[in-house]
Amino acid sequence: MEHLAEILFQLFILLLAAKIGDEIFKRLGQPTVIGEILAGVVVGPPLLGWYQITDETTLFAEIGVVLLLFQVGVENRLGDLLRVGLTALAVGALGVMLPFIGGFAVGLLFGFPLEVNVFLAAALVATSVGVTSRVLGGLGALRTIPGRVILGAAIIDDVLAMLILAIATGLAAGGISAERIATLLLLAMAFIAIVLVGGTGLLRRRRSILTDPEFAETPFLPGMIIMLGLAALAAVIGLAAIIGAFLAGMVVGESSERHALEGEVAPVAAFFTPFFFGSIGAQIDLVGLADVSALVLLAVVTIVAVVTKFGGSLIGAIHLGLPRATLIGWGMVPRGEVGIVVAGLGLQLGAIEGQVYSVVVGMAVVTTLVVPPLLPVLVRRAERARRGIQAAQSRGDGR
Amino acid sequence: MEHLAEILFQLFILLLAAKIGDEIFKRLGQPTVIGEILAGVVVGPPLLGWYQITDETTLFAEIGVVLLLFQVGVENRLGDLLRVGLTALAVGALGVMLPFIGGFAVGLLFGFPLEVNVFLAAALVATSVGVTSRVLGGLGALRTIPGRVILGAAIIDDVLAMLILAIATGLAAGGISAERIATLLLLAMAFIAIVLVGGTGLLRRRRSILTDPEFAETPFLPGMIIMLGLAALAAVIGLAAIIGAFLAGMVVGESSERHALEGEVAPVAAFFTPFFFGSIGAQIDLVGLADVSALVLLAVVTIVAVVTKFGGSLIGAIHLGLPRATLIGWGMVPRGEVGIVVAGLGLQLGAIEGQVYSVVVGMAVVTTLVVPPLLPVLVRRAERARRGIQAAQSRGDGR
Repeated sequence: MEHLAEILFQLFILLLAAKIGDEIFKRLGQPTVIGEILAGVVVGPPLLGWYQITDETTLFAEIGVVLLLFQVGVENRLGDLLRVGLTALAVGALGVMLPFIGGFAVGLLFGFPLEVNVFLAAALVATSVGVTSRVLGGLGALRTIPGRVILGAAIIDDVLAMLILAIATGLAAGGISAERIATLLLLAMAFIAIVLVGGTGLLRRRRSILTDPEFAETPFLPGMIIMLGLAALAAVIGLAAIIGAFLAGMVVGESSERHALEGEVAPVAAFFTPFFFGSIGAQIDLVGLADVSALVLLAVVTIVAVVTKFGGSLIGAIHLGLPRATLIGWGMVPRGEVGIVVAGLGLQLGAIEGQVYSVVVGMAVVTTLVVPPLLPVLVRRAERARRGIQAAQSRGDGR
Repeated sequence: MEHLAEILFQLFILLLAAKIGDEIFKRLGQPTVIGEILAGVVVGPPLLGWYQITDETTLFAEIGVVLLLFQVGVENRLGDLLRVGLTALAVGALGVMLPFIGGFAVGLLFGFPLEVNVFLAAALVATSVGVTSRVLGGLGALRTIPGRVILGAAIIDDVLAMLILAIATGLAAGGISAERIATLLLLAMAFIAIVLVGGTGLLRRRRSILTDPEFAETPFLPGMIIMLGLAALAAVIGLAAIIGAFLAGMVVGESSERHALEGEVAPVAAFFTPFFFGSIGAQIDLVGLADVSALVLLAVVTIVAVVTKFGGSLIGAIHLGLPRATLIGWGMVPRGEVGIVVAGLGLQLGAIEGQVYSVVVGMAVVTTLVVPPLLPVLVRRAERARRGIQAAQSRGDGR
């Protein structure tokens, strides 16, 4: 009973703080997600300590990002994503390679042993698509070409990150075979292909299986069930749970009651997502970063993380024109929870020690905080450039 | 990561099983809540063991019943409850006294020591209003006079149960003072009075504080925050968290956007409540009940639990006429999670041993399963009786 009261209080305090942070950043004209992350810093372990990272609060945070990506999936059509497939592939691949090389180089520069370098490199690889998709969603830019490229690249990115993590973990544990890597890659690709092609095909033909009479015929509870199931399955395979949730959203989004479904998912997501953003802030370790060597390492790692991801993604999308490529590159920068998970695994395996862990978490939080303020400007620039091209084309056609 | 995949899988499997149980009982024309409880028996520890009682799943179950009572609170007006206050007081008081005496007598009959008798008696006291309110809500009967009497009596019931539990715990720990009991009672009454009178008064005057611009101006997130806060506060005081949630619902229900709010709370509640009902079923201990002496004790305890609660509540409401008093008495019968919590505390304090615990949990599940099938019949009878009286009155007036 007392443990329960304690957890209810922690959920209460984080939701309250996130709402206050939200309102403050709304009034400042800044993305509200920053207010929610800072709420986690204030009421979490870094400052007040009223909110703790426990099994229960971690689950709420995870379900928050799972619902966020499910929601994004519902709003996106598979065909739209496939149409930008090659660009997304280029952005994903280059946006993984450059940060990996950069992270490894930083490790060499600071004279760390090999397994630290590998984990540092692996922690710099994966984009956390949660923050970007929330901000782009708020700007109504998720279904534009840059929005779709970011989503597609984030999936490819995650598959590659999973492989790199498997290699890093294997090295820390004493070796990994090429066979195991190939198996993992095949498994991930089979999962994505089967869910998408099979799932959407099945649902387009047999919509009735998703129908839920209690909710005016919208597939709300079946949707939640598919979301939890595919998130769990993705996590079992070694992919991020959010990839499963995103695919589940795309599958359920094929339902003809998509609009009503969105209206029901929205409040559930609104309830859970503050726990995700808040718990990112709550994980920063102010004490571990409170000396000069840690701050120098943090600054170098963060700059390398931003420059390599931005540069790699921008090059991959450059044929869309500089304004859109800049938006895509910048949108891929946040590392958020994925870097934190990788670093936590490295800590657990004994491959990295406390300071490198604190630095990676700090990098994840900083890259997540710097991205949102610039996004509205980049979205507007990309939109203006697109309209300019269209106008020029139609003038050309008219003559 | 693996722990997370495991928990996501457990949530998936219970939600899936509950949905299937729901559909089966819908087709059988029976209350769907039974299907959800039995889903917990099937996929939970009693049979398949795919769903476990962990800190995380317990939290989901608890938030499920918290949301259920919040929802019930939103739909009820304070004035409506106060209008049936005296009847609710009589039902609550008699519905606590008789089961307490009955439980104590069963303990004496079986020759248990004093502290076992006190815990057995305490476990029989508190009605779990979750099941009844869900079924009555489905029948559209929550805002009728019997529905309101049940809700009011359940609150009074819970305050009395808290006092009895404090006495039982004090006895097991070696004595309790009259002063402590008086303090607890005052604290509980002050909490309820301050929240209701202060909260609804404040909100009637200043509705704007609840307004949430992101959700078409409905107070959804502020409502969730108030719900978590009052649930935590109630649990800290020693009341059930659901009492805080119910009061929070009544307060937020004063908002002028009540209807839109209900539409947003509904999917969140629909997502969480299956975990509550499922986890009731999951707690039954089929192995612990698999011998004759346990089954005899279970049968006796369950019969006493049903007869004393039904009888006491019926007597308290008899001035409303037999049809409505029968409905109220029967609606008060389920013990559900409250009995399980009391028994768990007794086990923890060493006052009761494993078999009595299994019996109390079994009694809680059985009383919860027998109630729903009869409720639709009793609701119809009460409704017919009410119409008959009205018709007779209006004929009398007309002449």
